Amino acid sequence: MKWTSIFAIVVLALGVLCWGQRLLEIPEYDGRDRVHELTNKNYKTVMKKYDIMVIYYHKAIGENLMARKQLEVEELALELAAQVLDDLHDKDIGFGLVDVKKDVAVAKKLGLEEVDSIYIFIDDEIIEYDGELAAETLVEFLYDVIKDPVEIINNERELKGFFNLVEDIKLVGYFKNEDSLSFIEYDDAAEEFHPFVKFFATFNPQIATNLKLDLNEVNFYEPFMDEPVIIPGKPYTEAELIDYIEEHDRPTLRKLEPHSMYETWEDDINGQHIVAFAEESDPDGFEFLEILKEVAGVNTENPDLSILWIDPDDFPLLVPYWEKTFGIDLSSPQIGVVDVKDADSIWMEMDDEENMPTANELDIWIEEVLVGKIDPNDNEDHDDFDDIDSEDSDEEKEKKDNEEEDDADKNDDEINYNDD
Amino acid sequence: MKWTSIFAIVVLALGVLCWGQRLLEIPEYDGRDRVHELTNKNYKTVMKKYDIMVIYYHKAIGENLMARKQLEVEELALELAAQVLDDLHDKDIGFGLVDVKKDVAVAKKLGLEEVDSIYIFIDDEIIEYDGELAAETLVEFLYDVIKDPVEIINNERELKGFFNLVEDIKLVGYFKNEDSLSFIEYDDAAEEFHPFVKFFATFNPQIATNLKLDLNEVNFYEPFMDEPVIIPGKPYTEAELIDYIEEHDRPTLRKLEPHSMYETWEDDINGQHIVAFAEESDPDGFEFLEILKEVAGVNTENPDLSILWIDPDDFPLLVPYWEKTFGIDLSSPQIGVVDVKDADSIWMEMDDEENMPTANELDIWIEEVLVGKIDPNDNEDHDDFDDIDSEDSDEEKEKKDNEEEDDADKNDDEINYNDD
Repeated sequence: MKWTSIFAIVVLALGVLCWGQRLLEIPEYDGRDRVHELTNKNYKTVMKKYDIMVIYYHKAIGENLMARKQLEVEELALELAAQVLDDLHDKDIGFGLVDVKKDVAVAKKLGLEEVDSIYIFIDDEIIEYDGELAAETLVEFLYDVIKDPVEIINNERELKGFFNLVEDIKLVGYFKNEDSLSFIEYDDAAEEFHPFVKFFATFNPQIATNLKLDLNEVNFYEPFMDEPVIIPGKPYTEAELIDYIEEHDRPTLRKLEPHSMYETWEDDINGQHIVAFAEESDPDGFEFLEILKEVAGVNTENPDLSILWIDPDDFPLLVPYWEKTFGIDLSSPQIGVVDVKDADSIWMEMDDEENMPTANELDIWIEEVLVGKIDPNDNEDHDDFDDIDSEDSDEEKEKKDNEEEDDADKNDDEINYNDD
Repeated sequence: MKWTSIFAIVVLALGVLCWGQRLLEIPEYDGRDRVHELTNKNYKTVMKKYDIMVIYYHKAIGENLMARKQLEVEELALELAAQVLDDLHDKDIGFGLVDVKKDVAVAKKLGLEEVDSIYIFIDDEIIEYDGELAAETLVEFLYDVIKDPVEIINNERELKGFFNLVEDIKLVGYFKNEDSLSFIEYDDAAEEFHPFVKFFATFNPQIATNLKLDLNEVNFYEPFMDEPVIIPGKPYTEAELIDYIEEHDRPTLRKLEPHSMYETWEDDINGQHIVAFAEESDPDGFEFLEILKEVAGVNTENPDLSILWIDPDDFPLLVPYWEKTFGIDLSSPQIGVVDVKDADSIWMEMDDEENMPTANELDIWIEEVLVGKIDPNDNEDHDDFDDIDSEDSDEEKEKKDNEEEDDADKNDDEINYNDD
């Protein structure tokens, strides 16, 4: 594909900069064509040329102009990623496109399944990337991909670094050494989840003592939880570890991250997400996040609860749009329930940003969400319950009757929520 | 300015997405023209229309094609920022361009000085932005701009959030209430540095006790330092606070951040930067950063030392380029000295990523940099000192003699450094 746009020339313009500036100049696309269009004929040859192959399995083009334009923007992101990684010294990373309609055979042979996803082929593994299609986010993700799947903790300071990582699921095991059979099983399991789940190990008995780990034992940490769970039944086979992680891969509290945002969003519960907005670098946001973590800690055994934390700082371009769509002000923390189909939502009332809800209040609110008493689809007419009582449909009547029963049963504190 | 490129049509393509996906779709530029070209005739009228005006003071266009193309890319970023902020509910934010050659009169009247900078006009303040010209980074910065310059700490959890912020210079003061004269002086000083320096205050005696603050007293925290310095001479006038901060605005350890990267880079010391690369989310990087903080703590009084910490995760598109230019591997931590003019550099040898230097070794290395014994401009021929001894120029001879004197005087430990 040829690029005749303004991008072709920009890189030349950088030639006029002095060195000092150039060291910090974020690269623009230079217009050279690096992304391959994979076909049944060329895909094997192309893929052999690279250590790692990044393949965008995209919607069919040719159907309409808009889809083609959209693909061109996405392809620009891939071209920029390919250009930047051209300079990487120790790995050859190739980029390719597979069209869902034109290249059915290639997709089948490579095992591509979800359209609009990126598949990364490295050694014998295939990693699915379902995050933001921007060069920055994808390239940063690829740096994680080429790291070892298990990181070794050698000393106290590295252990502190381990404890400092709280946003992903992480595991840590204590093994005799790299040749130990248990470690090899662990390492194989790590490859299955790399780089989404973080695997650590130590061979140092002192570090193991600090982690309260026996030999060949593995601790599993949910995101944002200080206390790990010891995976039962050591020593574990690769399959046992994989099973355990797959059973526990939806955390009680998880963060929306650009490199996996679409995948996380698709993993809704009954078509809804409990979404919490909190800016960690703001004292109010930090405070609310602490409360959230406390509530998550209490509910860690509840499989029906997965709160999605979004830090607005990570998605600055979406903030005004979210504010408008949800009718909320993101300059202070918010928690609500969002219907993923129609974007209906309902938000907990926090009348004063200096008065956050207590963990207990938040816990009660969440419980009401889980039993369906707080439902984004009730949002519009909730305020008018009394007025429109006589016009209720049978379905609504039944629902409200159930709600009243719930009330009587549980004697909950009253919760206010926002209705606009 | 008209955009006939592919961007004009992309936003339409998003129309085919369902709601759930659309909630997370990072906006693309819709092709509408929102950025004003300011002239002597229109600038007053345009600026009156907005609460906040963001003006890019750019190099002259028309001189050459490349400069114009470069400006177009930058303008696209501004257009996208303007489009996104169009949706902001409580502030009108306008964007404008001022050409250094064509619009000399406007620049003079508005007080624009540094070409290639963005000036933000808000109330009576002008804030200079000298960071990455990308919509995301600029928009995130503008959210900080519209926040109150002083954040109030009301409780223990917010205090924890305050302690959690370590990357910027921050101040915290204890005042009677918002009407106290000392607080008003403090608030006025905050406006001068907002949003680069973070100002906090509390009116709560218990929080003040935890901060060891007397009434009307202000603590000054360098980045990454746990222990604050009490600003002497309370109660302070606005001018006294401003003077103190300006005297202490180059920290011993500071982080390169996208929103201020060019400004930070320009603030070199004798044409050089000590640059440390460390990925905080990696145990090795975290460990090295802990060592760096320890060394910075010891040297906090040294005005000649300012270590620039770069987290490669913040600049993924620059990593391969830095690796190539500096001849280093950024998958593990690095520290070196970079000459900002010619990008010559010299890097401390860390032969094994499992064996970080101790704080003491690092401290000695830094001292050798400060006295000029480690100099990026010596890099090329250092390895060959013995061989080319007889061919040394007088200047080099003199330098080496001085070095030997230094050695004898200070009896330093021997330091290895990287020579390639």
